[in-house]
Amino acid sequence: MAAQRRVAALTRQLTSAPAELEGFDPVPAVSDVVGETDTAFDPRKLYEFITRDNIQLRDAAMEFMQDDLYKPNYYQGLMDFREQTLQRLQKFVDQRYFQTMDYLKNPRKFMAGLEVLALCDYSLAIKAGVHFTLCGGTICKLGTAKHHEKYLPGLDSLELPGCFGMTELGHGSNVLGIETQAVFDKDTGEFVIHTPTDTASKFWIGGSAQHGKVCTVFAQLTVNGKWEGPHVFVVRLRDDQGRLNRGVRIRDNGPKMGLNGVDNGQIWFEHVRIPRDALLNRFADVAADGTYSSPFPTVGQRFGVTVGGLTTGRMLIAGGGIDASKIGVCIAIAYACQRPQFGSRYIMEYLTHQRRLVPALATCYAMHFTLCALKDIAFSPKPDAKAVHVLSSGLKAAATWNRVEILQDCRECCGGQGFSAENKIGPMKTDFDVDTTFEGDNTVLMQQVAKALLESAAKSKSKPQQPALGPGQALTPASIQQLLQFRQDALVAQIGGEMQQASQAAASTGGKAAAAAANSAFDANLDLVVALGWAHMEARSHQIFQDEVAQAPQQLQAPLRSLALLFGLSRVERNAAFYLSQNALSRPHFQAVRLFVNETLSRLSSNGGETLLRLCAGFGIPDHLIQAPIAFDWRCIGRDL
Amino acid sequence: MAAQRRVAALTRQLTSAPAELEGFDPVPAVSDVVGETDTAFDPRKLYEFITRDNIQLRDAAMEFMQDDLYKPNYYQGLMDFREQTLQRLQKFVDQRYFQTMDYLKNPRKFMAGLEVLALCDYSLAIKAGVHFTLCGGTICKLGTAKHHEKYLPGLDSLELPGCFGMTELGHGSNVLGIETQAVFDKDTGEFVIHTPTDTASKFWIGGSAQHGKVCTVFAQLTVNGKWEGPHVFVVRLRDDQGRLNRGVRIRDNGPKMGLNGVDNGQIWFEHVRIPRDALLNRFADVAADGTYSSPFPTVGQRFGVTVGGLTTGRMLIAGGGIDASKIGVCIAIAYACQRPQFGSRYIMEYLTHQRRLVPALATCYAMHFTLCALKDIAFSPKPDAKAVHVLSSGLKAAATWNRVEILQDCRECCGGQGFSAENKIGPMKTDFDVDTTFEGDNTVLMQQVAKALLESAAKSKSKPQQPALGPGQALTPASIQQLLQFRQDALVAQIGGEMQQASQAAASTGGKAAAAAANSAFDANLDLVVALGWAHMEARSHQIFQDEVAQAPQQLQAPLRSLALLFGLSRVERNAAFYLSQNALSRPHFQAVRLFVNETLSRLSSNGGETLLRLCAGFGIPDHLIQAPIAFDWRCIGRDL
Repeated sequence: MAAQRRVAALTRQLTSAPAELEGFDPVPAVSDVVGETDTAFDPRKLYEFITRDNIQLRDAAMEFMQDDLYKPNYYQGLMDFREQTLQRLQKFVDQRYFQTMDYLKNPRKFMAGLEVLALCDYSLAIKAGVHFTLCGGTICKLGTAKHHEKYLPGLDSLELPGCFGMTELGHGSNVLGIETQAVFDKDTGEFVIHTPTDTASKFWIGGSAQHGKVCTVFAQLTVNGKWEGPHVFVVRLRDDQGRLNRGVRIRDNGPKMGLNGVDNGQIWFEHVRIPRDALLNRFADVAADGTYSSPFPTVGQRFGVTVGGLTTGRMLIAGGGIDASKIGVCIAIAYACQRPQFGSRYIMEYLTHQRRLVPALATCYAMHFTLCALKDIAFSPKPDAKAVHVLSSGLKAAATWNRVEILQDCRECCGGQGFSAENKIGPMKTDFDVDTTFEGDNTVLMQQVAKALLESAAKSKSKPQQPALGPGQALTPASIQQLLQFRQDALVAQIGGEMQQASQAAASTGGKAAAAAANSAFDANLDLVVALGWAHMEARSHQIFQDEVAQAPQQLQAPLRSLALLFGLSRVERNAAFYLSQNALSRPHFQAVRLFVNETLSRLSSNGGETLLRLCAGFGIPDHLIQAPIAFDWRCIGRDL
Repeated sequence: MAAQRRVAALTRQLTSAPAELEGFDPVPAVSDVVGETDTAFDPRKLYEFITRDNIQLRDAAMEFMQDDLYKPNYYQGLMDFREQTLQRLQKFVDQRYFQTMDYLKNPRKFMAGLEVLALCDYSLAIKAGVHFTLCGGTICKLGTAKHHEKYLPGLDSLELPGCFGMTELGHGSNVLGIETQAVFDKDTGEFVIHTPTDTASKFWIGGSAQHGKVCTVFAQLTVNGKWEGPHVFVVRLRDDQGRLNRGVRIRDNGPKMGLNGVDNGQIWFEHVRIPRDALLNRFADVAADGTYSSPFPTVGQRFGVTVGGLTTGRMLIAGGGIDASKIGVCIAIAYACQRPQFGSRYIMEYLTHQRRLVPALATCYAMHFTLCALKDIAFSPKPDAKAVHVLSSGLKAAATWNRVEILQDCRECCGGQGFSAENKIGPMKTDFDVDTTFEGDNTVLMQQVAKALLESAAKSKSKPQQPALGPGQALTPASIQQLLQFRQDALVAQIGGEMQQASQAAASTGGKAAAAAANSAFDANLDLVVALGWAHMEARSHQIFQDEVAQAPQQLQAPLRSLALLFGLSRVERNAAFYLSQNALSRPHFQAVRLFVNETLSRLSSNGGETLLRLCAGFGIPDHLIQAPIAFDWRCIGRDL
């Protein structure tokens, strides 16, 4: 059938563009490209292949979550949910799967422990993430021995719940522009932390409304009247009994559209005095006599090393979005494979359903492998800071934006059942929705990816390679990678070209004017800038996916190759307008991409979706965390009554 | 600046495709097309122009919603929210803005009264919609005088809360396949309503879990052993004291991802006996002696007239989605116009922000005008049933899918503030998320639109008109309309062509085989089928929008023309791959579309976004329903403490 469709479509093309099509079939049989899909592979083998570290820890933690305390209760009000979340975190912490210091000493173990939480409940994951990663990690990374001794034991046991005081009401993405003040008082040897305006109030501070006792506060440091830029200080919000400290004012941020197990708050500091030791002094210090010292001479450099530590948080956000997507896909595919509609046909057999759910499954694997690659770079002996920044920024944005799309498709593909809380997709949609804008707004992160690419290109001056996908050339993993890479290169050339033209045109009126002109050319192309960030992540993830296929055990190669192909093809299809406008894709190729996608979908969805179900099982998420009744026997729903 | 960008881009093109571009500028200055945008227009005039009926009723009802009972409380648990929703509905009903019988006698008034509720809270709107439209409307339309006398007073006063028993656990879109049985017992002159299996249980029945007392139940009627197809019966679920009637079993559907003010339930009937009068007998009746009679001889015809009444519900769902989109856009644009980032620049000045919010604003107006056109057709003296079905199905799908995209963009454009419940966008996202799959799954509805177009085309046999947008031709409202129309026609030709080919190939083996072959060709192109539904709605809405611009008062024409242009251009841009692959758009035109969109955006967003703010104000939604603090003075947030 698929072959007939292909021929039919190409015949139609033939009438419109004969020259391009002389005896040309751009679509090899899918089997020629991916080999026969073997459904006999063992999902556990797949899980072990994609899970690179701490399998025992992960299995144990997932097993532990069978505890009744971790079963959802959607009837309770907001305040009860917050208390439940604190109890859940305490019981989890008591298992001691990892320690705060693992943030530096064993980051893979640190992340593995936290990653499991997102499979259960995102409020729990975020409350833990703020405490261990943002607060604890900052103290580990920017603090010194005295801070580690003083705070880590309390963080490890949760006796000292921690918050992260960076964002302000008036300053989200622009951390360098925060207004909170830290002035050194030489006479008393103290820092005075102060909130000069309402826009300087710390906003959305997770854990601060009710439970937080300690907070790592970002503030502009002034010593001897000289501004030294943002520094981080450890400030007690509440005493051991949980009473607010003097000068600390906190307003409850109140209900959110989701994630209501986390108590976010807004904080004002009124001339709060803290000891000199409260400065996290690994990269800068103030002596008793008020002498300021730092190995980094400029504010910019110090700011760079100060915020550089956010990478782990971004990796966790990306990982959480990927795991939520996996759960959504597992539920929607399981339901679609057993839910008939209009007679005996299962909804998974409809192309419209396959078009939404199967590329989503492929994207989950693509993002998962990209996160694995990012960890390899970030946790290598000598990580390249810029490379880590670019990939972590891009992956956080791509994984969470993909998550939005995937969960929406999963929810809709389950019909009304997808709207029911017990089926988990809906609550995940509301809880995870925050991930597109926190820990870096996705639009801003994609711009940072693009800026990095534009900078390197400006140095290298390489021309984009037109992909060799002329008439007669078939779609293969290699040619797909060429297309994805070409899109990145062409966008770099286009945006970079306009910036260069603009700066040259203004050069005569001075370097400042030239830089300003380049910037406004950049702003005038912000839509392409974000597209460039996407293009980079798609090319990157497809290459990584292909490399993983090559390294996979024999029995896993065919199914993974189908998914990798599908991921690449769907991304090419999504941006077909670009490729057509650049002559990188001929019109018959455009037709062929669609047919190739559809053929891959019908192959993967055949025999009752057995291959799809095994690929879902390969994520290794146990039934009690998949949770949704519709993923099991939906016909029994209500029979318990 | 914009002009320079245009020249720069076209110069680049020049090098790549000289022949196509000899002295060619496909982009007239935007002002040539839309005229100078006059920001001095009066928003109230705009509101009065777009609001076609019952302005006093709408203003009064919106005013009434200032009552404290209608202020949101996001702290309460699910059961409290349900009670609050019932109280809200009772107090609203007590105002007697309309009566149930207006469903037939004055549908515009009926809809106006219900439309206002969605501006306040969607749970309230849906609880009211189920009661008045689905239950009440069905009794009005399918019932006769005896039913109207018996039930309407109780419905008008809400003493008799009503439910709508159509959907079953195993049967959503396939109503003809429901399993609930209604057997006529000649001896007692009663119908016996029975649920033979769990999949036959009525599912998601709004209002049934706690408050519903009466339900219009869809069941397969059997009289004298003969199956007569689905009919509707009025069944009491609970007595006047609210106690469940004998044989009625109801399970609470429990928490949902949103809309938790509505008590959805699952219902089983165990040989429930109801009087012969309980059959809504306008289109079919059963005499005391068991004689079945109907003016419609076939099951198919009777089914058609029975479910035909769902149109009003779909119009209300579409309207609700459009109104939620309006509120989201009003909030996000108001915030973006006063929220600086990275210095003194407001976020509304960034192209990335304009790209997300301004086309969304245009889409709100396009969808609003399309709903106005639909009402004109549906409420005309002799409505064309098929035309109403196609447009109401297509608009419900398009408006709610647009709503998903618009609210997501609005939420993200507000950063963390967009996630806060008090800023309303988040809660709207969770509550309205149901609208893509209830009252007809969007994917199925778009297929029905496409089927109707394919049927008419099969009769007319007209060839798609290649739009006259060759090199040298400028982008104008007329040429944009040609492009949108061409996409619809070309998709009809492509899908229809494949179906015809398939059936001809199979014709030799008989008509049944030919029809089956055509159907599987249809299924093999389901992705294009849904695209065709979209193409039709976009062409339709753009035409309607252009017609409205022509009829608008002088002072409103320029701003509305800009929005209409933007709506059309963004839809062309979205499907540029199709146009490029069909040679309907040249490569320079493709570049031009993007630049034209960007130029329109920067024009509309100039002088502090004053034009945008007035266009938002034109929706006429009062501050107490916009509600979000960030839409007013976000700098004060928390100052109340």
